[in-house]
Formats: sequence, structure tokens, C-alpha cells
Amino acid sequence: MKGIHQLAKHLDISIGTVSRALNGRPDVNAETRRRVLEAAEQLGYVANQSGRSLRKGSTNVIGLMIESGKDNVDNSDNFFFGVIGGLQTVFARHNLDLAILPCPSEEDPLEYLQRMVARRLVDAMIISATQKIDKRIDLLIEKRVPFVALGRSHSGGSHTWIDLDFAGVANSAVDRLISKGHRRIAIAAPTTDINLGFVFVDAYRAALERHGLTYDPALVLRARSSEDGGYSVGGDLLALAPRPTAIILIYELMAIGLYRRLMEAGVKPGCDIAVIGFREAPRARFLQPALTCYRLSLQDLGTELAETLLSSMPDYAEIYSSHACNRLWPLDLVPGESDAFELAP
Amino acid sequence: MKGIHQLAKHLDISIGTVSRALNGRPDVNAETRRRVLEAAEQLGYVANQSGRSLRKGSTNVIGLMIESGKDNVDNSDNFFFGVIGGLQTVFARHNLDLAILPCPSEEDPLEYLQRMVARRLVDAMIISATQKIDKRIDLLIEKRVPFVALGRSHSGGSHTWIDLDFAGVANSAVDRLISKGHRRIAIAAPTTDINLGFVFVDAYRAALERHGLTYDPALVLRARSSEDGGYSVGGDLLALAPRPTAIILIYELMAIGLYRRLMEAGVKPGCDIAVIGFREAPRARFLQPALTCYRLSLQDLGTELAETLLSSMPDYAEIYSSHACNRLWPLDLVPGESDAFELAP
Repeated sequence: MKGIHQLAKHLDISIGTVSRALNGRPDVNAETRRRVLEAAEQLGYVANQSGRSLRKGSTNVIGLMIESGKDNVDNSDNFFFGVIGGLQTVFARHNLDLAILPCPSEEDPLEYLQRMVARRLVDAMIISATQKIDKRIDLLIEKRVPFVALGRSHSGGSHTWIDLDFAGVANSAVDRLISKGHRRIAIAAPTTDINLGFVFVDAYRAALERHGLTYDPALVLRARSSEDGGYSVGGDLLALAPRPTAIILIYELMAIGLYRRLMEAGVKPGCDIAVIGFREAPRARFLQPALTCYRLSLQDLGTELAETLLSSMPDYAEIYSSHACNRLWPLDLVPGESDAFELAP
Repeated sequence: MKGIHQLAKHLDISIGTVSRALNGRPDVNAETRRRVLEAAEQLGYVANQSGRSLRKGSTNVIGLMIESGKDNVDNSDNFFFGVIGGLQTVFARHNLDLAILPCPSEEDPLEYLQRMVARRLVDAMIISATQKIDKRIDLLIEKRVPFVALGRSHSGGSHTWIDLDFAGVANSAVDRLISKGHRRIAIAAPTTDINLGFVFVDAYRAALERHGLTYDPALVLRARSSEDGGYSVGGDLLALAPRPTAIILIYELMAIGLYRRLMEAGVKPGCDIAVIGFREAPRARFLQPALTCYRLSLQDLGTELAETLLSSMPDYAEIYSSHACNRLWPLDLVPGESDAFELAP
């Protein structure tokens, strides 16, 4: 793949002449034009879109930063593949392309993003897995890179974000369990400083208190957001005395490991203990009894993320001016059998 | 995010002076340097890595083109997330970054790749899902873009590729089933022109003939490479008279739909019919009876893909000169219960 510099050097004529020949300008003689076009084909010349875009100050590519750690490899269950479809539907309207930028798990996400910004590959960024304090947000603001965050953070003030309504799920799950007679309700929460963990636990606590129940930190079980994490939550749950009669999970695949651990102990979800999962996921669809969980359209979420981002980019702001720059994304209850029993009062 | 042009314009001094100030050159007076650095911070100036790289002829980014269609969203089961870990392990040694470029399902993959090449975002490409005739390969050769294909093709002559050993799997599965007494063995194959389909069916036919059995095209059941495709294969299989006693699948998630369809008809895998799946997949792990299938390390495959690619790039060719430029990637049998019975002779 050769650019105009290599082409000019190869032909030993000026870059200006090569450029005029390639752009069909009349002030180049026919023989020179013929030589330039022949060499362009021979050397595999590619018009330098990136150079062109830089003059315009844009690359027409939007970056989506994801974390490609082993946990995600084993457990992500296609969340991002689902969102991508929606993003691309919107970007295609404006001849924008999407590049997924996977941050390796060994690397600090801030350093990774700094490098990506320095590479100037993209015009704007979508970041996800926001932490309670997330310096990536400060970086993007400082560097004037338009962005939208999937997830809130305490960093950065009034930037653009969309977040799943974790508080709504915690509220709905607590209400549902209490209406079925449960009073001792455990919750699985992440071990990291990911912001959604704080939102989820705070909302769980507030919902309990709204029903006149006391928050007991011992019922907040910490585990990795994975199938294995669900297995370890199962062990912790069984070790609590008295045992909680219900548990709410924060991550879709936790249910698989939790079911396995409970079954090993002869404790049956939906009979001996109520389980409410988080997002409905293809891999959790095979659980018996069927998991009560929450549904969202990843395609629609992707569309909304893209439009929210564009509303913050000068070239597109007018088209998407009616977009709110922040939004909580609702999830709908999918009742299953895993909590389908009532406790005797 | 501002570049050097905007900075120079803002300060109303020449680009050359701004550049010298930013690069700490002595031929700039102290006051000008101070003004430049202050404005750089104020405007969110970012050193134009892309411009720098273009002068070197490189971006230090490698592209991985994947297809982000709905089938993949529903069914990909993280094949690529697995491979990415291996790719990044190798790329990190050379300060190369990976950008995943998802081709929307509505778009022609050739046109998509043409645009990506024109954007000059990446120094080299990894392509996958190669078709029997795949013009993307001709394009990359013509444009002198170093690349490796995950999958073979009839296009492009002796380019660099790695392919899963589909023929090895077909051979091993046919041998295994024949040793258990099966003579009427069906196979599920893709409906598209993806090259692996041709390889798989050809090897199945050769294996049958090696055992003195006649190839019967009616036993090649075509379906989408998805869970739903497996369900439809189940219907086709049940409609064949006499019914085959065994089936070999080409795609991991087909097993889930196939099991469902067979169960609906009261036909039990591992008792009434033998089933051999393809790649071991997390979502298929929950099938009962356990599926006989094949295993590969996605991390190792990613490492090999990256090293093979680098061996074809001028800057890295020497380091990886011992690498073969083509390789069939083996898969290991994982015996399950889904074919664990012998037919009476």
C-alpha cells in the first residue's frame, strides 16, 4: 500500500505534479499522467483518505472502546455484538464507520485510551464499563474528543451518557420479592469499582428501607461478574445463617454458576430459594427452572447511543438536537419460574 | 481535539514555528514557545500520530474485519473475543494495536473492505469467513496491504492463511461413527459459499468413499449456521426415509436447535440417533446428553494468526521468518454421550 510520497519518489517527479495527475487536472502533460497512473496501479497506490480527513479535521470513524479481558471473553455473551447493529444503523446514515477498540485486560484503560486518542484514529469515542471515578472521562473532555459513556460516573460533570436502569431493576426485584413474602433478600454485587455496582447496591438498600426492612451489609455478596462468580455467590449464600430466602443477581451469567452450586447442595431455585437474574441472555435461556430476569433491546440501545453521541458532535448536533444528552435505559421484567412461589407469612 | 493546523491558525503564526516550538527546537524564542504550549493545552491539541505515521507509511494499527450481521449477533458465542486475546498478546510486543472492523450485514464485504483500505486506518488486515471466490483477497494483494486470512479461498494464489482443519474433523467424525456401526450418516452444511462448507462436504464424501460407502447428496442438509439452522436441520433429518442413524454438524450452536427439534419428536440424541457437533462452545455445554464435539484453543489460534501476519509485514518479517505462511489448525475430539452407542450390525 503506497501513498503519494512513495509514488512521487518512485517516479522522481514532484508531489504536486503527481497530485495534479491523479486528480485529473489539465496542467499535466499526457505522458506524465500516463506514467503516474501506471505507477499508481503498479505500486498499489491508495488515495490517502486519512490525510484528506485530517485536513478536514476528521477521520469519519467512531471508536467503541471495550475491555477484552479473559472475563469478557468467557462471559460477555454478545452484549456488544448486539449493540453494534444499532450503532451501525445510525452511523451508516452519515458515512461514518465503527472501529471497536479492545483494551487488553493487562493494560490500564486510561493509558490505552490516551494512546488511542494520540493515534487520532477516530473522530469520537463510545466508552463503557464506567468506574465510579473514571479518568477516561476527564481525558476525553480535556482533549475535546466528543464521546458518550455507556454508564455513569462521578467524573467529568455534565457529560453525555446513557446508563441501564440498574436502580429500576433493583427496585422492581425487591418489590416483587417482598410481595411474595420474602424479608431476607441477598444481592450479588461486583468486586470492582464499576459504577453500576454502587448504583445497584444503593437502590437495593433504599428499596428495602422503603419497605421498613433494615439493610444488612452481610447480605451483599461480592463476586466476579461471571459464571464462576455466580458459583462462588452460591457458596456464600448457603453459608449464611439464617439462609436468605431470595437473591437478586447483577450480572446475566451469574445465574448459571449459582444454579449449579445450589443444585449441588440440593437447594432448588424456584422452590427452596427465589432467584432473580439480571439481563436475559441466550446462555441463561437453558436454565431449568426458567430464570425470572429483565429484557432490553440491544439494537435499540445501540441506536440511542449513536444518536446521543452524534448530538454532541458539531457536524451532526443540529440533526440530533432534540436528543437528551443523558438517559436511563429501562429493562422489562420477564417473569420465570425461579421466583414463582410465595413464602408462608 | 485540535491538530497543528488549528493551533497555528489560532495563534496566527506559521505551522513550522508551532511545530518547532512543540518539538522543543532551540530556534524558537521563549515567549513564542510559551504561547504555543499554552494554546496547545487550552485547545486540547493532540500530536498527530496519524500524520507522523503516514510519513513513516504506517499507523501501527492492525484491523480485524468481522461480519456483524444479525446471525453473528445471536450466534457468534464469542469466537472472536477468544481470538482477540491471542492477537493482542503478540501485537503488544511491537506496540501495535488492534481495531476490530465490523462489516454490517447489509453491506457487501468487498465494498466495506475497499472503504477501510481507502481510509488507511490500519497497516495490515486480518480477514475471516473467506468465500470460495473472495475478491477481498485480490483487493488486498493489489493494494499491497499485508494480510492473513482466517480461512482458505480459491482466490489470490499463494497468500497467507490459517484455516481450522474442517477436513480433519469431517474425517474423524465419519471414522468414529462408522466404527460404531453407522452406515447412513447425514451432515449439516452451510447454505452460503463460505469456503469451509466446500472443504467439509468434500472431506465427508472422501471419508465415506474410503470406507466403501456411497455418497448420497440427499444426506447433505443445508441450513443457516445458527441455533435456528440446527432446528431446521432436525426437521429435514426426521423427514428422510429411511432416517439416518447419525448426523455431523458444522457449526457449534446448531446442536442446540437440533436437540430441541429431536426432543420434540421424541427422538433422543445418544440413544435413537448419534450426533457429533463441531466446536465446543459455552452455550452448548448445557446440552443433555453431553455433545461429542471438537476443541481448539482460541487464544493459541489468535497468537498464531498474529505471528503469521507479522511474518508477512516487512518490518517484522525477520523476527517471524521461521513461521509457515499457511497452516491447518487442528481440533481435538471431546467425547460426549451424544454418540455413545453402537448400532447392531
